Amino acid sequence: MTEDVFRLSSRFAQMKSSPVRDIIAVMGRGDVISFAGGIPDPSLFELDDFKESFAYVLEHQGRRALQYATTIGEPELREQAAQRLSRHLPTAPAQIQVTSGSQEGLYLVATTLVDPGDVILVERPTYLTAVQAFTLVGARLVGVDSDDYGMLPDALADAIETHDPKLVYLVPTFQNPTGRTMSAERRAAIADVLVRTGVPLLEDDPYGELRFEGEPLSPIAAQPGMAERTVLLNSASKVMAPGVRIGWLRAEGQILRSLEIAKQGVGLQTAVTDQLAIAHYLATYDLDAHIARVADVYRTRRDAMLAALDARLPAGATVTRPEGGMFVWARIGGEADSAKVLPLAVDRGVAFVPGWPFYANNPDRTTMRLSFVTNSPDMICEGVDRLAAAWGW
Amino acid sequence: MTEDVFRLSSRFAQMKSSPVRDIIAVMGRGDVISFAGGIPDPSLFELDDFKESFAYVLEHQGRRALQYATTIGEPELREQAAQRLSRHLPTAPAQIQVTSGSQEGLYLVATTLVDPGDVILVERPTYLTAVQAFTLVGARLVGVDSDDYGMLPDALADAIETHDPKLVYLVPTFQNPTGRTMSAERRAAIADVLVRTGVPLLEDDPYGELRFEGEPLSPIAAQPGMAERTVLLNSASKVMAPGVRIGWLRAEGQILRSLEIAKQGVGLQTAVTDQLAIAHYLATYDLDAHIARVADVYRTRRDAMLAALDARLPAGATVTRPEGGMFVWARIGGEADSAKVLPLAVDRGVAFVPGWPFYANNPDRTTMRLSFVTNSPDMICEGVDRLAAAWGW
Repeated sequence: MTEDVFRLSSRFAQMKSSPVRDIIAVMGRGDVISFAGGIPDPSLFELDDFKESFAYVLEHQGRRALQYATTIGEPELREQAAQRLSRHLPTAPAQIQVTSGSQEGLYLVATTLVDPGDVILVERPTYLTAVQAFTLVGARLVGVDSDDYGMLPDALADAIETHDPKLVYLVPTFQNPTGRTMSAERRAAIADVLVRTGVPLLEDDPYGELRFEGEPLSPIAAQPGMAERTVLLNSASKVMAPGVRIGWLRAEGQILRSLEIAKQGVGLQTAVTDQLAIAHYLATYDLDAHIARVADVYRTRRDAMLAALDARLPAGATVTRPEGGMFVWARIGGEADSAKVLPLAVDRGVAFVPGWPFYANNPDRTTMRLSFVTNSPDMICEGVDRLAAAWGW
Repeated sequence: MTEDVFRLSSRFAQMKSSPVRDIIAVMGRGDVISFAGGIPDPSLFELDDFKESFAYVLEHQGRRALQYATTIGEPELREQAAQRLSRHLPTAPAQIQVTSGSQEGLYLVATTLVDPGDVILVERPTYLTAVQAFTLVGARLVGVDSDDYGMLPDALADAIETHDPKLVYLVPTFQNPTGRTMSAERRAAIADVLVRTGVPLLEDDPYGELRFEGEPLSPIAAQPGMAERTVLLNSASKVMAPGVRIGWLRAEGQILRSLEIAKQGVGLQTAVTDQLAIAHYLATYDLDAHIARVADVYRTRRDAMLAALDARLPAGATVTRPEGGMFVWARIGGEADSAKVLPLAVDRGVAFVPGWPFYANNPDRTTMRLSFVTNSPDMICEGVDRLAAAWGW
């Protein structure tokens, strides 16, 4: 009956629930080894530091933490965010808008810029939940071909000429879902195309600090001419804790004010409690040391997963070998459909995310995303054994 | 230069910044007595109870509080919300979606139902920041005439026939901005129209529990046939604390799932820290006793403001006399434009919100919203004196 009462918008009719969210929602089963979510290992959270940070805020800034505040965000957090970003790209606190996680940042940019039918160019494959944010505003997503070093500049230039996109969306470092990182040369070449064609960039960088080896790379926003045409998203979720829902974006000029106005409509402001607690944590504790501890653990787990997969994957299958982040991306090839294997895998006690929903169009259905961060090396080996049994390798 | 880089969506081009938000953003001046925001008096926050609640959550549920969680919300909070709502309308936890404040609820409903150009019927005047949420999805807002008991049923029926609206939006109790409450008879008559015409209702009830006198009224959602065609919004902001950004909505059937999927795209989930802290607070402390304490204080302030206004308002001016909530609504009449008086008032050290932005169309520019909750009776008297000087009463 209610279906008749509420007539959904035509934009919304295109929306599908996130397979990752749905997998998280049913992951109560304790006997399933999950490679599905990009879920940080909670045993690595600096719980004592969070306890102290919230206690400090409620003790010393309590009435402010519980009150309404500005939409742009708390000054202390904007200051901390600007300092961290300035390691790669000079950033003033005035260029920071606080967001309730990166997902809100994705959505705010999309709703500010996109009319139904407008094109956003994305990687092939791209981040699944960004697809949701973009679909919700009626964007038409077009995937641009990539190789192991990221999106191909010539393919990007062709796609810009063909589609006149409102925006290009990239996750250049330890990409979700592939784990792939765009090389320094590729960043420069992509920036050249964007500056030349005048198309703005939405650069999403939640994983960049989670580097296990190799040299850090600056965001594309730091390339010549790019800072003013990029909205750069950062998040506390992957390096601190996702439960607090704190992220921030960097932008310059008028677009920053437009994003602030959009945020008034979408949710007024981000929780002040969490903003002040994260600001206190960043001002008080050594986040770099924490990230180094986490990276040590995740490196071992990545190695365990790659070793187990190398031993098990059938001939012709490939897997990415990321220098950081949370994910590897396996392509089995042939006629396999990972979505059809998933229920068999869950029956055997292992979960992953099938590759198809990460594609804007023409999905490669033989792919799957595997997160290596949540489980111990022993569990990873056991999980890959179960995976092999489910796939029949 | 950046104006050329980012091409705004045509929906967004209709957006204006909230005058209330902008006033909050500049209210740093300590010598201005503000009647502008609907800002709870922070000295009334139960700070010790919040401290204990956050400490409890981080001590006993810490790793869960810092981790990803479901989009629908934490079970403990959904249970508490359902219990409170069930005082007026039987509600199961499964009918609750947690939101990051009511504002997110408004936005989720709008984006799920509204295509650009679709009509939402609203009160004359209506809640300003709801107008922002609705405008951001391209809604066309049409104001329906009201009297002292709320929206007029015949005018609603006519507007439904003329405009085929996707939705009717009402704040039936202690409305923002007028403080007006819809009578029991009026609620029944409005429900009759909605059931007969099949138009769904978005019912916003952030103030209903802030009653200083008189008998509580059930939401329109509790009228026969209305529960299944209403999305009912509640919030912790007005009765507990706005800084945590916790609200919830009640809905039945398919629309609940659609709103959950929309929330995946807009922001994934609400902060788990704050959800669990509010759930602990509701389970542990006596919110009714807190509300009674707050209501005692606010009643005195409302009385002080009405007495001061009665002594000062010019002949022909009117002011509402609400039984609860946060606002009175003054209509000066004649040729006055409250927006032009505002800068003069701020110069004299008092702020209010001019009435015009609360109207979907044809604003009555002689009106203004005055909040009585933030200041002491003495400050209120001083503020009304300054107001009188600025207006030249």
